[in-house]
Amino acid sequence: MRALITGAAGFVGRYVAKEFYNQGYEVVGMGWGKFSEYADWGLSSWNEAEISFEMLCEYAGKPDVIVHCAGGASVGKSIEHPRQDFCLTVGATSHLLEYIRVHSPVTNLVYPSSAAVYGQTKEVPIPELAVLNPVSPYGVHKLMAEKLCLMYAERYGLSIAIVRLFSVYGEGLRKQLLWDACNKLSCGDMMFFGSGEEIRDWLHITDAAKLLYEATKHTSSFCPVVNGGSGCGLRVRDILQCMCDIMHIEENLIFSAVQKEGDPDVLLGDISMMKAWHDQPLKGWKTGVKEYVEWHKLCR
Amino acid sequence: MRALITGAAGFVGRYVAKEFYNQGYEVVGMGWGKFSEYADWGLSSWNEAEISFEMLCEYAGKPDVIVHCAGGASVGKSIEHPRQDFCLTVGATSHLLEYIRVHSPVTNLVYPSSAAVYGQTKEVPIPELAVLNPVSPYGVHKLMAEKLCLMYAERYGLSIAIVRLFSVYGEGLRKQLLWDACNKLSCGDMMFFGSGEEIRDWLHITDAAKLLYEATKHTSSFCPVVNGGSGCGLRVRDILQCMCDIMHIEENLIFSAVQKEGDPDVLLGDISMMKAWHDQPLKGWKTGVKEYVEWHKLCR
Repeated sequence: MRALITGAAGFVGRYVAKEFYNQGYEVVGMGWGKFSEYADWGLSSWNEAEISFEMLCEYAGKPDVIVHCAGGASVGKSIEHPRQDFCLTVGATSHLLEYIRVHSPVTNLVYPSSAAVYGQTKEVPIPELAVLNPVSPYGVHKLMAEKLCLMYAERYGLSIAIVRLFSVYGEGLRKQLLWDACNKLSCGDMMFFGSGEEIRDWLHITDAAKLLYEATKHTSSFCPVVNGGSGCGLRVRDILQCMCDIMHIEENLIFSAVQKEGDPDVLLGDISMMKAWHDQPLKGWKTGVKEYVEWHKLCR
Repeated sequence: MRALITGAAGFVGRYVAKEFYNQGYEVVGMGWGKFSEYADWGLSSWNEAEISFEMLCEYAGKPDVIVHCAGGASVGKSIEHPRQDFCLTVGATSHLLEYIRVHSPVTNLVYPSSAAVYGQTKEVPIPELAVLNPVSPYGVHKLMAEKLCLMYAERYGLSIAIVRLFSVYGEGLRKQLLWDACNKLSCGDMMFFGSGEEIRDWLHITDAAKLLYEATKHTSSFCPVVNGGSGCGLRVRDILQCMCDIMHIEENLIFSAVQKEGDPDVLLGDISMMKAWHDQPLKGWKTGVKEYVEWHKLCR
């Protein structure tokens, strides 16, 4: 069995590659950027190439599975450079779907989407059928990529599943709240954006990778969409306080009350559908955060 | 005042160019294809170029108005070549919006979208707020282009209006029902797709062009969306029978009962919002069809 992981050089991509390797797949990768340590992540090859129809013809072959991890990866950057985010997320997905349709229609495709497609929503926890109202270009583009997946599944019979990942974290993630917080707290900076009351649903990257692997068993032309989260809503304040405790910091956290642009107040997933696919115990968030803080120490 | 009409070589684009010319604008055009008769349509120049950020930098300048008529133009072709339709419609719109954001944020943009974004709908006549459920790649892509317009208006303050055109027809349209019907009927072929009971809302191209001109007065960062139709639902059977009468054909029409792929049963717009923008008498459909049949005779 052969799996192609696009964007395997990225945070999610490399863990997904490793998971497929552990499950006995031959794993190949392609996407933007250098990735010299690809073999450590279970990849037999890495092709540094954009995700275009032409490059896919060159490198993709006819894999049993594609997990399309390549795409824009930052809400902030998407606001600053919306066209670039569009190309990375929507453009690349359009190329990939056309490649599968024309050259490898039996391939099963898993698309890691994002909870950002929900945006500001009143339903908590958020079911997959909630109204989709993304607030950032990142979220708008993820939703467009989903729509392309749905169209290619419905009209051309491609076998696809979509997983909307909530706040994925873990060793290797050098951005977003936990990374920034480790950097700040270790310098004595206690000031954070927002109110601290924002709620997020944290999923450890190893659990996310397992879920994306499980999703390959559920791909179909109905293109099911499933939330990928822990189902447990944590206030930003709570996760930061936990980090302070681990780091033996006794000062108080300060919140600026200035909301970060493009950030909804609550992102907490209804994971009953995910449990039907993948009902295994998840890594507890306190353990996960502790491991993250320890890894961060080694990075400095 | 200067207007740029993208896709001015196309059926809608050339009438829009002429309308802006009649309203006293200097009109320039760019897009795919040759267009040697551009001056006849009121254009002071025609640049044969793809609608890309780079080509826009080269040719667009800072027009007061852009009407973005360029895009995929066939449901059938979009089914056969979805990626091409994606590039023509979604890709080009993404390039154009980014160009306006970066280089000409004061430009007012009018986007001619399509009733195809509604797809199969239960509400008749269809209000602008109806559920959007496009059935063809053409419709899916038009909706994506709309979503990009909404995002650029809301987040970056671009001044935009969207007009969802229903069945636009008129002299020069060498495809779709009326063109096919003229060709068939004049050869004695009485057989047509579908049941004949499909309902469409026909808008003459001169009325569509006037509406697109009026829309420039309503662009804003709220990006209003308005239906462009006649508000009058005609069965395919009725319009074809009218053509037969004009052509003095006494044979009966025959319908295959095979639905054309990607074609919803009913597309009839609620035009109360359009009337608030542009409350002028529209060309009657019988007059419009008669003129079309007469023009078709000259083409043969």
